[in-house]
Formats: sequence, C-alpha cells, structure tokens
Amino acid sequence: MAASGVSSSHFILLFVGLSFISNRAESIKYEPNWKSIDSRPLPAWYDQGKIGIFLHWGVFSVPSYSSEWFWYHWQGPQPFASVVNFMKDNYKPDFTYADFAKDFSVQEGIFNPNRWAEIFNASGARYIVQVTKHHEGFTSWPSKYSFNWNSMDVGPRRDLVAEVSSAVRKYPNLRYGVYHSLFEWFNPLYLQDRNNSFKTQDFVFGKTLPELYELVNTYKPDIVWSDGCNGPDAYWNSTNFLAWLYNESPVKETVVTNDRWGNGALCHHGGFLTCHDHYNPGTLQTRKFENAMKLDGKSWGFRRDTALKDVISIEKLLQNIAETISCNGNVLINVGPTKDGVIAPIYEERLRQMGSWLSVNGEAVYNSRPWTFQNDTVTPGVWYTQRKDLKAVYAFVFNWPSGDFTLAAPQVTAETKVTLLGYPTSLSFTGLGQKGIVIHIPPIPFNQMPCMWMWTLKITNLAN
Amino acid sequence: MAASGVSSSHFILLFVGLSFISNRAESIKYEPNWKSIDSRPLPAWYDQGKIGIFLHWGVFSVPSYSSEWFWYHWQGPQPFASVVNFMKDNYKPDFTYADFAKDFSVQEGIFNPNRWAEIFNASGARYIVQVTKHHEGFTSWPSKYSFNWNSMDVGPRRDLVAEVSSAVRKYPNLRYGVYHSLFEWFNPLYLQDRNNSFKTQDFVFGKTLPELYELVNTYKPDIVWSDGCNGPDAYWNSTNFLAWLYNESPVKETVVTNDRWGNGALCHHGGFLTCHDHYNPGTLQTRKFENAMKLDGKSWGFRRDTALKDVISIEKLLQNIAETISCNGNVLINVGPTKDGVIAPIYEERLRQMGSWLSVNGEAVYNSRPWTFQNDTVTPGVWYTQRKDLKAVYAFVFNWPSGDFTLAAPQVTAETKVTLLGYPTSLSFTGLGQKGIVIHIPPIPFNQMPCMWMWTLKITNLAN
Amino acid sequence: MAASGVSSSHFILLFVGLSFISNRAESIKYEPNWKSIDSRPLPAWYDQGKIGIFLHWGVFSVPSYSSEWFWYHWQGPQPFASVVNFMKDNYKPDFTYADFAKDFSVQEGIFNPNRWAEIFNASGARYIVQVTKHHEGFTSWPSKYSFNWNSMDVGPRRDLVAEVSSAVRKYPNLRYGVYHSLFEWFNPLYLQDRNNSFKTQDFVFGKTLPELYELVNTYKPDIVWSDGCNGPDAYWNSTNFLAWLYNESPVKETVVTNDRWGNGALCHHGGFLTCHDHYNPGTLQTRKFENAMKLDGKSWGFRRDTALKDVISIEKLLQNIAETISCNGNVLINVGPTKDGVIAPIYEERLRQMGSWLSVNGEAVYNSRPWTFQNDTVTPGVWYTQRKDLKAVYAFVFNWPSGDFTLAAPQVTAETKVTLLGYPTSLSFTGLGQKGIVIHIPPIPFNQMPCMWMWTLKITNLAN
Amino acid sequence: MAASGVSSSHFILLFVGLSFISNRAESIKYEPNWKSIDSRPLPAWYDQGKIGIFLHWGVFSVPSYSSEWFWYHWQGPQPFASVVNFMKDNYKPDFTYADFAKDFSVQEGIFNPNRWAEIFNASGARYIVQVTKHHEGFTSWPSKYSFNWNSMDVGPRRDLVAEVSSAVRKYPNLRYGVYHSLFEWFNPLYLQDRNNSFKTQDFVFGKTLPELYELVNTYKPDIVWSDGCNGPDAYWNSTNFLAWLYNESPVKETVVTNDRWGNGALCHHGGFLTCHDHYNPGTLQTRKFENAMKLDGKSWGFRRDTALKDVISIEKLLQNIAETISCNGNVLINVGPTKDGVIAPIYEERLRQMGSWLSVNGEAVYNSRPWTFQNDTVTPGVWYTQRKDLKAVYAFVFNWPSGDFTLAAPQVTAETKVTLLGYPTSLSFTGLGQKGIVIHIPPIPFNQMPCMWMWTLKITNLAN
Repeated sequence: MAASGVSSSHFILLFVGLSFISNRAESIKYEPNWKSIDSRPLPAWYDQGKIGIFLHWGVFSVPSYSSEWFWYHWQGPQPFASVVNFMKDNYKPDFTYADFAKDFSVQEGIFNPNRWAEIFNASGARYIVQVTKHHEGFTSWPSKYSFNWNSMDVGPRRDLVAEVSSAVRKYPNLRYGVYHSLFEWFNPLYLQDRNNSFKTQDFVFGKTLPELYELVNTYKPDIVWSDGCNGPDAYWNSTNFLAWLYNESPVKETVVTNDRWGNGALCHHGGFLTCHDHYNPGTLQTRKFENAMKLDGKSWGFRRDTALKDVISIEKLLQNIAETISCNGNVLINVGPTKDGVIAPIYEERLRQMGSWLSVNGEAVYNSRPWTFQNDTVTPGVWYTQRKDLKAVYAFVFNWPSGDFTLAAPQVTAETKVTLLGYPTSLSFTGLGQKGIVIHIPPIPFNQMPCMWMWTLKITNLAN
Repeated sequence: MAASGVSSSHFILLFVGLSFISNRAESIKYEPNWKSIDSRPLPAWYDQGKIGIFLHWGVFSVPSYSSEWFWYHWQGPQPFASVVNFMKDNYKPDFTYADFAKDFSVQEGIFNPNRWAEIFNASGARYIVQVTKHHEGFTSWPSKYSFNWNSMDVGPRRDLVAEVSSAVRKYPNLRYGVYHSLFEWFNPLYLQDRNNSFKTQDFVFGKTLPELYELVNTYKPDIVWSDGCNGPDAYWNSTNFLAWLYNESPVKETVVTNDRWGNGALCHHGGFLTCHDHYNPGTLQTRKFENAMKLDGKSWGFRRDTALKDVISIEKLLQNIAETISCNGNVLINVGPTKDGVIAPIYEERLRQMGSWLSVNGEAVYNSRPWTFQNDTVTPGVWYTQRKDLKAVYAFVFNWPSGDFTLAAPQVTAETKVTLLGYPTSLSFTGLGQKGIVIHIPPIPFNQMPCMWMWTLKITNLAN
Repeated sequence: MAASGVSSSHFILLFVGLSFISNRAESIKYEPNWKSIDSRPLPAWYDQGKIGIFLHWGVFSVPSYSSEWFWYHWQGPQPFASVVNFMKDNYKPDFTYADFAKDFSVQEGIFNPNRWAEIFNASGARYIVQVTKHHEGFTSWPSKYSFNWNSMDVGPRRDLVAEVSSAVRKYPNLRYGVYHSLFEWFNPLYLQDRNNSFKTQDFVFGKTLPELYELVNTYKPDIVWSDGCNGPDAYWNSTNFLAWLYNESPVKETVVTNDRWGNGALCHHGGFLTCHDHYNPGTLQTRKFENAMKLDGKSWGFRRDTALKDVISIEKLLQNIAETISCNGNVLINVGPTKDGVIAPIYEERLRQMGSWLSVNGEAVYNSRPWTFQNDTVTPGVWYTQRKDLKAVYAFVFNWPSGDFTLAAPQVTAETKVTLLGYPTSLSFTGLGQKGIVIHIPPIPFNQMPCMWMWTLKITNLAN
Repeated sequence: MAASGVSSSHFILLFVGLSFISNRAESIKYEPNWKSIDSRPLPAWYDQGKIGIFLHWGVFSVPSYSSEWFWYHWQGPQPFASVVNFMKDNYKPDFTYADFAKDFSVQEGIFNPNRWAEIFNASGARYIVQVTKHHEGFTSWPSKYSFNWNSMDVGPRRDLVAEVSSAVRKYPNLRYGVYHSLFEWFNPLYLQDRNNSFKTQDFVFGKTLPELYELVNTYKPDIVWSDGCNGPDAYWNSTNFLAWLYNESPVKETVVTNDRWGNGALCHHGGFLTCHDHYNPGTLQTRKFENAMKLDGKSWGFRRDTALKDVISIEKLLQNIAETISCNGNVLINVGPTKDGVIAPIYEERLRQMGSWLSVNGEAVYNSRPWTFQNDTVTPGVWYTQRKDLKAVYAFVFNWPSGDFTLAAPQVTAETKVTLLGYPTSLSFTGLGQKGIVIHIPPIPFNQMPCMWMWTLKITNLAN
C-alpha cells in the first residue's frame, strides 16, 4: 500500500470526456469493440458520489443460510456438506430450490421500499445497485424471458425492480442501478452452450440479451452492474450490447457499467473495474474502480444465523471507505434484506452510523479526488484525499490522534491551516518543511468530540 | 345420423399409402406444404387399434377443481366466478398458479406407472396419449426450454414422460403418444407475438419448436397430438416441423399426428381430424378422425368433487365407441389421474368394464372398417362395422333385443349366419330380402348372458 | 353357519321393553352396573333400520395412506416399514402428525354435507355413525377438552359434527350417531394412567368423560358408538356414564349404544354387540349385534391409492347384508370421505347401487326379523328373513336361480305363494312337504330383470 | 423521582430472613396464606445479581409481527386493524393461529442454545427467565397437559426448556428461571371458568397447576415468574402452590417468585413485586421489585419489521439499570429470539455492550444496595448505589461530566476519595460539607476513556 503519484492522463481524458458530454450525441458513436467501448469517459456523477449501496435480494433470501450461493453449494458439482445437511435436516426429500420461491413472501405490512430509501438516503450513499437477477436466474421484475421464474409469477407477486427504483428515485441525491448476472448456474440452455464450448449461443440470444434490453428499456438504470461472466465476451456478445447502451439506449448519457462482461473483459474492459470482490488495491489506480464489500462478512445475501462478530464494525467500514477512495475507487456497500423485505436493524445501524459520520466528514469524500499520496508515508492508519476546488487535502485518521500528531506527506506553506472536521476551532501545528507537519491535537472533552470513529483533518494551501 | 355409402376413394388412397410404407424410405420426401403433408397415409396400426386412452395430468391436477382450464378461468380475460371464489375462499391472496406445482407431489409409494399400464392394457385400448404440456406450459419432462417450470425442477422431480412411456411400452399391445400444446395461455412471449398479430415468432422459435423436437427425439412417440393452435399455421411453422417429422425424425415410419397445427389446419390438414372435442359426427367420414371423449363429463383433468352422475356410464361409453368407429373414427377416452398419480377406482372400473366387454366383442372393433351403412335405417340404437377378412358385418345393439329383432340394412344370402358374440349357439333369423332381416333372440338366462351392456350381432356372408 | 332356532326370550324381553317406553320416565332408573345397564331394551328403530353408514373422517384422511391407523403405524411401538418409508420419502424430517391437520382442508366449494346426506338417503341406509374422535384424539367438533386439536381450531375450521348431523337430519329416514374413541394412542395422560396400571384416572376425568357428556348434550346423537376400550371398564367409569345416558341425557329415550365400553364389556355388555370388526357370525345371535364392514377392504379411512380390486363389489356387499340380518345383526357400511370432504364416486356408486337394490328388495330387509332358519340347509348362497306382519319369509339368493330351484327350509301350505321381488307375476313351485320346495324360475328376458344382483324370493303363508 | 430515606424495616426483615436460611429446613413451614408466604425472605442471590434476561419465544415468534399478543389482537374481542389486515393480506382465509406452529421451525444448523448462553454470560446478566408458556398456551416443553400444543408435538420437535436451561447452567454465573402464564386467552376451559365467575376451577386443576408442578419438578428453575393472573388468587389456588414450592419442591431453598399470582396478589404478595411492565418507580421501594423492560420498545416477542429507532440505545438501557437498582429493583431485560432460534445481531450488540460496560462498572452494580439517596438532589441524571463492604457510594452519571461537577447528596470526610471506575488516577474534589461535593473532572483524551456511555464515580468513606 505504498503511496504513488497520480497518473494525470486519466484526468485529462475525463476532462475531455466531460466536455464531450454536452454535444456528444452528434459526434460520438461507439463501436462494438473494446477499444471504442473503453474510450467512453465515465459520467461524472459516479466518481463524485463515491459511495453506493448494494442490495442482494432474491430467492436465496428465503433459505438465508450459508450465502446467496446456496443453490450451487447444495446441488452444484462440489456441494458443501453444511448446505446439503441443512436441506436434509430441515426439508422433505423432494424439495427443490424453486420451492423456496413461494416463501419469498415480501409480505404486505412488512416490506416498505420507502423505508429502505429513507435509510439509504440517511446513510449518505449516492447510488443503489439492486440485484435484479442473480445466478439463480430468478428475475425480480416480470421478465418476458423468465416465465414462472420471476417475482411477479411466483413469490412476491410484485415488480421489485419497479418498487425499489421508484422509492429510491424520490431522493434527488440517489441514483438507481441494476446488477444482472449473465450466466445462470443451472439453466439448461446455458449448460448446453457451455458443453458446446460456447460455440452455440442459444442462451445468450434467447435469455441474457433480451433480458438486458428489457431491463434497460423498462427501468432506465444509471448503472448496469454485470456479473457472472463465465464465458468469453464474444460468447456474451458484450461489446454489441454496450455499443447499443452507449449509443442508443435511453440512458446513454448517464449510464455507468463495470467490467464483468466476459472472461477477457474482467479487470480490463468496460466501465469501472471491479476485478474481484472486496477489491481494495491499496495503491492508486489510474482507472476508476469499485470496491464491493459486505456488511455481513460471510455473505452477500441475508443469513438468518449471522452473529454480531460477522458484522463489520463501523470503524472498519469507515476505514475501508478511506482506503478505497484514496486510491481512486468507489465503495459499494452490500446489505442483504430479509425475505420479508426488511433491512435488519444491525445493518440499518451501520448505514445510519455512516450517514452521521458523513454529515460531518462528507466534505472530504464527495467530489474528492485522490491526492499525490494515498496514505501517509510515516504514520500508519492515515489516508488522503484532496479537493482542488477547496485547495484542501484531507487526512482520514483511523485512531484518535491525541497529543502531537506527525504526518510526513503534507508540505506546509504560510497559508496552510489545519482543522478537524466538525470541530469549531482550528488546530495549531508545526511545519517540518518537506518532512511534513506536526499537528497539536487539543484535549477535547468527550462531549465535544465531532464524531466517535475515524476523524478527518483538513489541511489547506499545502505546497504539494 | 343417416347412413351413407362409403367413399371408396379414401380406401384406395389408404391402400396406396400402405403399399408405399414398405419402401418409402427411398422414394418419398414430404414437402413443407399441406398438400404434401396431407398426402402421407396414416400408418395402419392407428386405424386398426381403434381405441386410445388420453391422460390429462399436469399442474392443473393439483387444484383439481373446475377443469384443466383452471388457470385460465381464474386469471384469464373472462374469469369464472366459481374459480375466482374458490381461490379467494381457500388460498392466500398472493397465491399464484405456479405455487400449485410444489403440490404436484406424485408421492413415492403412491404413484406407480406400472399399475397404470396394467389398467390400460386390461382396458383393451391400443394406445395412450399423455399430456406432456398443456396450455399452462408446464412440461412433464425436463425440457431445456422450460427452466423451473417442468416436472423435474418443481413438483414431482421426475421425468413423467419417461416413466409413463416406459411402463406403457412393456405391453406389446400398447403404443405411446404425446399431447403437446402449441400455445400457452400466459406465456409472455406468446402474448407478445399475438399482440404483434403473429408477425413475430419469438415464442415459436424460442419455445414451441425446440420443445417439439426435443420431445420427439427423446421419447420417440408414435403419436404427436398437437393442440392449442391459436395462431395461423404459418406462425407455428407447422408444415416444416411435420415435414421433418415425416422425413427425418426417428419415428418417421410409425408416427401419427392430428390436425391441430394452426388455425387453418384444424379439421382440414395434418393426420387424422379432430375438429372439436367430442367429435362424433354420426355419418361416415372419408378421412380418418378421432373422437376425444371424457370419462368425467365435466373435465379432462381430475376433479376432486366429481360426482357419480358426472361419470359416464359404461353403457354410454360403449355406445360412443360404436357410433364413432362405425363412421371411420377412433375414440380417445380421457382419464385424469390425481395429483398423487392415481387413476381413481371409478375410472379404473370403467376401463376394466370396457376391457371385459372388448374381451367378448373385440372382434367387431379391432381391425374393423366402416360398413356401407353406419347405423340401421329402421331400428334406432344399432351401429355397424365390418370385417372383410371374416366376411362379417357387426351390429352393435344398444338395448337388449329380446324377441324378434328387425334390422333393415343387412341383405341376407343363403350362406348368412347370425351369432351373438360370446354366446355359443347361432341365432335363427328370417331374411326380408332387400328389406333386411328379423333375428329371433332366444330367452337367454341371466347367468348365461355374454355381457351386460351393448351386445354385438355378427352377420356373415351378407349380400351387401 | 348352521341354521338354528331363534331364542324367543329375547323377543319377549323386547316386547316388555317397548311397553315400558310409554311410561318408563317414572318407573325405570338404571343403576351403574352391567346387570342394570344390560336390562335396557334397545329402542326399536335400530333393529328396524338394519343398515347404517359409518363415516371415518379425521386427520388420518390427510395422509390417506395405509389406513386410519397411520399415526400408530408410523410412530407407535411396532411401526410399519411402509408407513415409515412413506414419511421418510415424502416429508421433512421433523414433520409431525399434528402437521397434517392444516391440510384437513374441507375446502369451500368442495365439501357439501347436503350432497353427502342425499347419497346416504339414496343408499337406503337408515342411520349414520360419524367418527367424531378417533384414536388420534382429534375432535371433529370444537371440544372444550381438546384445545387446538379439534376441527374448529385447526384444519377445517368448522364444526363437522354439527354440519354432518344437520344435513343428515333433514331426511326423516335417517338417524344420526357418533363414534367416539375412549383411549388415544399418544395422549400422555392416557399413557400415564396406563403406566399406573389404570389406577389413576386423570385421562378419564380430564378428557374422555367430559368429552362424552359434551358430545351427547350438544349433538343429541341417537347412537353412541364407543371404541378404543383399552382399559378396564371400571377405569373408564363406563357404567356411570351409561346410567346417565339412559336415565338423564337428552337422548335417553332413543339412544342406542354398543359394547365397546372397557376390556370386560366388549362382546358382553352395553347395547348391541360388535365383538370385532366385520363381525358376521353366520349363526343366529340371541342378542342384537352389528357387523361393521368396509367398502374399501383395506382401510376404514380414505386411501389415495385404493385400487378397484380393493373395493367390495356390489354383489359381495349385498351378500354381507343378507348374511348379517338373517342372524339378527345390523350392518354398518363404512365409507371414508377424502380430506376435502368428498365421497369418492366409486363409493357413491356402491351406495346408490345398494339403494337401487333396496328400492326393489327393501321389504325383506327393513322391519324384518330372523327366521327359524338363517340359511338354507341344502342350497348354498341362500339366507332368510321373515316379516310376521306380512306372513312372509324372504330368501336372499346370491346366484341367479335359473330353472328349478330347490330350497330345503320352507314348508309350504295350501296358501303359500312365491314371488320374485320386483317381478310382476308370481312363480310356480312344487311343495316337498317337510323337505322344502322347488321353485320354477321362468326365463326372464334381460331387460325385465328386477335387479342385477342378489334376488329375493318371497314365500308367504308357510307352515314354519 | 425524589430521593427518600430508606425504610430500615425491610433490611431488618431481610437480615432475619437470611439468618433463617441457614437452618430453615428444620424450623419453617409456610402456610398457604399470603401472610405466611410473604414472610419468606428472598434468597440472596437474586438481589445480588441485579440483572436478568427475559426470553420471549413461542409460536408468536412465527408471525413475529405486531407483538407477542398477536393472536389476541387478531381474534380477541377488540382486534387491531393492523393485525387483522396483515392476516387478510398474507394468509388464506381459514388460516388458524395453530397453523403457525409448524413454522416455529428452530431449524437444525441455525438454533444453537450454547451460542445463546455465551451471549447471556458475556452480557453480565446473572439470570435468565425463559417464557415456557405464554397466554397462547403453547408449552415449550413436552407437557403432559398440552397434547399437540407443545414444542415436542408440533413445530420445533424439541424440549426447548431443557435445551435452553442446560446451556445456561453451564455458566456458573447464570441461574435459570421460567416464565409461565396462568391463564390462556382462548383456552375454552379457562373461558368457561371465567363465565362461571371463577366459581368452577376446571382449568386450574386440569391445566395450570399440573403444568406448574410438572415444570418445577422437571426443570428445577430458580425463578418461577408467574403471569397472566386474570382471576382471583383463590381461583388460581396460588398460596397452596407457593406453600408447596417453598416447603416441599426440589427448589425450595433457592427459588424466587414474583407477585403475579392472582388479581389480589399483583403488586402486593408473593416474592418480588412487578406491579406492571416497565416498573421503574423512581423512588426507593421497601420491597424488592423487578423492572421488566424491552430491547425492542414495541414488543416482547421478535418482530420482523423492527426498525432501528424501535431498539433501545445502549445509553437508555444503562440509565434504566441505574434508576432501577438505585431504588431496590432488579432489571429483567427482554430479548425476543427469532422463530429460527437466533438472537438478532442488534440485540446481541446491546447485550455485549452492556457486558463491556459491566466489566468496568460491575462493582457498582452487583452486590450493591440502595443508598440513602436514590438520585442526586441537585444534578439531574445522577443515580446512586452503595457497597457497605467497600465503604463506597457510587454515582451513575448519564452525561459526561466535563469540568467541575457538583453533587449535592454526598457529604465528604477527611478519608473521602473519588475515582472514576476504569480510570487509573483518582479525581480531585472540593467538599461542600453538608451541601455536597464538587468533583474536578480532568480532560481525559478520547482513547483513554474508560467507557463510552454512562460513567460511574466511586466515592468512599462518606459521612452519610
């Protein structure tokens, strides 16, 4: 996690990209190849927002045991003994995974998408990514291509994509995106194509692509978060879809995508890079990336038996945010609602804790950019961002810095000022020239602390 | 129901067709147009067998209320109040039709296809037609094109087509066929095509045809009994499929089909004609037809509340057979098994009663052909068949003909002999020249009656 | 099955008993001991009616597999492998018998007690005995002593005793009775009493007796058909209950009971004797008895997998009636409705067949009494009753008696006349003095037969 | 909530009582009247432990909606519209409360009583009170008196009382008690007794008392927490039961009970007083009481739709503890496990937060007694306890007392010393004579704070 200089080329590209946005309709036409697709600048809102919320909610929320990969770990090629036994102990012999769907109840009087949206907004996140179809193949909208295996035909009897997106969009600060899995573990058409070494594309043209077009045209998401790219990108016909998405779709101006568009694309092509789950590289990335992380450390989907120790602490959560955005990433924080449609109080608590923290420290997060240094070169547990518009560098400090606190990266000037975000009076310090700064932290009484976890020092008018 | 002379042209055609069978593989290639398709002679086994059993068994067997059209009458455009109220009274508000599938239990220890086949064989029927997919779209085999809406993924967890066909085929006298519905009431792809005035064919090429090829290639049925032809035959691409079926398929030599291949085809093209349910025209038909009829007069699918008065009596059943085969038809007698996989005793009783009748009277049924007259011109309740190989005409007599019994159609010769099938001694009679015959029925003691319902008089060496 | 002279003492007792009825309220008080209880004459309606229908309907109707002893054969001390496997194969590991109750659905739109009653009436039966609590302990009425294990709290949510009794009582020819099991297989209070060698009576005073009083006071049954007398009659406190029933209860004038009131009582004390299931002694019994028999030969409760061969034929059913009433018994014909509340068509058929037979032959059944001979001394398959009021003896003939038919028991007089019930003209015969009679059966044409199974010869003004 | 002098009589009584404990077996025999019952001193462990955990877990945990009074609010005399609509919207019309039982699943692989016990122990609580039968009547042990309405016959198929008590007892610091409801909302025997103005006692002698004896004899609880005392204590026969409990039962030496033993007893007789839920009187009580309070402010049973705002904050929880124990009470903190057998992470968090607080501040809680003053006479948010063995008075301070902090109650001496529990150095102060003390709180850096919520000042060697 060494600090490194930021690549300027990316920012120039972004700038150019933004200038294009105003009149690109006439001028740019993306081609169905990665070079052209990759050339599209990310719409600015995405980098500015920094924090999203990931929602894993599907039929896997019914067993809510082990993880959202429950089906695969039960009946896939390498079953988990724990899952196999869970089924043997608790269900009748001929129970099928599809039988869980009827209990994806989303009961009237319990599920309330407006309550979700209020929590999301209070959390300070800027966008939502809802799982609309996971590898199980169940679509959370009434897809024409998933007869009797969608949320209108079985289980909820609701269009969950419509309901969640509508509730979210009532908040001007929130954008709505969809997660969509290209492949499906047990879809016989996919399995057939795979057995044919991906030389046939019955599944792609009969299921995946029609679904994707339907999703985008119907719900106009600002993010298409692709996943499950088990197969070559040529098999998935990805560049054609993306060219349409960027050139023709109703969201061509605002939409953001990721990189999970085929075996060759992951970590290389598309929009922002995700590379792997919990992608937190610790060093500056020239290309925008996203760190998808979980509140429940053991599962993306809700688990009924989650223990407190499995839930990330607010301290760790905030530290992840600092590390990620310092290196040019966004964080996508996952919560798995219950089958009934509830965000469990422990997750609501983490999200509201984050919101309370952001209400004090958001200045250092939203609209920030990576600084020359990502983390301090001497003091551990310190990560930086900058706001050029405010001539400010921000140091996220993991542990309370009582007494004299030394930072090696900032080089002070005569105009330099140091404050603690949320604390009224500025802090005194001693400049060390190119060797940094010593900040004198005053003995702040407990009841005057600006926040309880991770503190932000704001340092303005630095030389670097 | 006036008697009429039989058209000889049909028989000539049939003869020609049969002569082709021996060497058609080299010589005939059917074209994908009705003229060519219609030119194919029916394989002889079908006409010879005369009696089939129709099996309506699917998810509709779970509610087993109202009829197999339950779903449509519940949620279609013109709901039945009785069905709507049944659901309201007995199920939770968000219950969906797909939720019934899990109770299509086909429990171990109850369902026994060998027991079914034994009953079918004992009934004297010569073929079985199993509903493999009704308008609900649920496939009773693990179709690749019906993910999570087939009998392996939900409900039975069995390949019901494989199990029933295997059990049936253990009996040399029985052939196995499949019923398959082209359209599906609520499949959104079909509805979309229909909304597009059948100018798009997403449903046909994504679902119907792949399914049909899969069915035929996997289970090699001797009958493909198409239904649900709501749409032009060009939409369904029917002639192409049939050309493949007749030219290329593994059952090209033996397969029989019906006429339900599109709006224009019904009652005009294909194999045997069905025209409408309970198709019992009462006059000689030049083209082979089939009378599909029900043991439960109110439903093809099992109903839990069937009353005895709804069940056809053995007398009526036998009369239907007589009327139908006299006019060049086959009968297809429907029974709806329960969701558990049982043929209810009342239906087993009817089938075994038919079998006991056929064990006495089968000579007049199997391998018979229509006679010059279909029913008697003077005495009601008398229908005829003939066996040229035996120089015999058979009169099926609905009511016990005590005393002197006059028939107007037969013209006796010196060699004419009259017997009652199952009764040891021949009957005396008085010839009336071209005006018929008076048969003297002896006072047969009750315990010497050859059967209890519908009796067959065999008259040999007639002049006509 | 030798014929024997009838004991006249019983008839005298009965006569005396009947004469008492008019003014017994003042004069008779039964004591709680068997001698006194046994001294009560049976109300006359019971012997006159001859035929009852037994209804086994309870939670056991939900699995409807094996028999109504399903629970015991599953989890009792000596389990049946078939039942254990059925549960293992089809239900989840922790499924309990009580879980079946929710599926005792008795769905609206399917169950119709008026339809039942119409069938019962059409069957010619004169009384109904409904299982109101079997050994499983589930009460089909909302008993105060069976909280959450009764038909109002779980499953049907109906008072099935009220509904069936009301429907039955709309028919003047039908009386209503209740079957009630004293013991319960798995009731821990019963098991505790039994472990205490029946020296404690917690179960009797906390459950059995309160229930019985509640049943009688609420539904005023004309029959209390006790069962499950596993324990001494002193344990069950039976004579006290019966004394109350005969002296004080609202049905004291009309009620009939059986003998299953404790280990010592069975086949010895109480009302009519039942001794064991299918009690068909074949010789004259001085004391009134009842032959409880089943339409499904393998189970009293409905089975989903009943085959036709398991169902008694109408011939055998009628023969059982003849044998039983000839010997001073009544028959109680069992039918097990489905969990949905339907009398399956095959049972409806048997009942209506019996009704059609009784409509011709009822004269020889209702109000008849045993004759001097029970069955013929020479010709097998002939059983007798008599009607003193009509000076007639009736011979039930199992097989059609074509030609000269010899009976050894009847001794003709000059006034003797022989008829076949349902046939218009009387039959000629030759008297053999004390050696009997030869009846000349005419050759009746099939369509003039009075009935199709078991025929009744009526012989009047005999010498014996 | 004014402070008041402590009644000395109570302590004398307690002292006497404790002295009796050593040799009471020989000398004391409690009579079945309140005077005698009330004379029994509470076993010392109860007052010393101060904090218990209440577990509401039963069939009401299945709907887990509204509250544990779900059944009553659905089908009782004054239904809640929200509950009625919840049922109407989500369940079939004939769904009964008993039908919920089968989903009281307590699935293998999820429920782990050892995990519960570890949490309870870590919370610092000293006893557990498990709901073994709530007003719904469902017993969480296999009671002989609740056939098919207990946790062995339906639902869990486990003895939940045995499993939880065994797990709890592995921790030497934890004692185990049972909650038991005398009445049952819908038990027809209770309703009958009530209709008889409690002059009959069928329910008491047939259900309540046998159950209580069975519970105590089988599980030997240290607490019998009675509830549901709807009826006179004479009806419930309470004093007889308590006399047995105190004189004869296997737990006569250690058992503690409360006051909910009949309409006249509540808040007057028995063991500790509970008076009403959330009983937090705010003034010194001469008699030991218990404040039963909830982590979920809206329900004792688990609710699926609990929002974070419904969950008590750790700050409020600790304040309740301080207020209660200052006035001579214990707190009984309720948590409702899920139907699956999980203590939701938010409740686990509160319990562990309490445990972490007690690990620093437990000295002021366990074994403490009320002081002369309960709360400070001048500064709000300050409550006192004392430990005579340590010559210490403890002030629980709700808000961080930065700067000079004045307390009016303590009167200092020369030996007086002031410390902050968990902070290494003692605090300087200024005595005000009879007017109290001013404590000088130092500027403690954030990372040296002994705890984050409610702080305890320990003041030794006071004059008062």
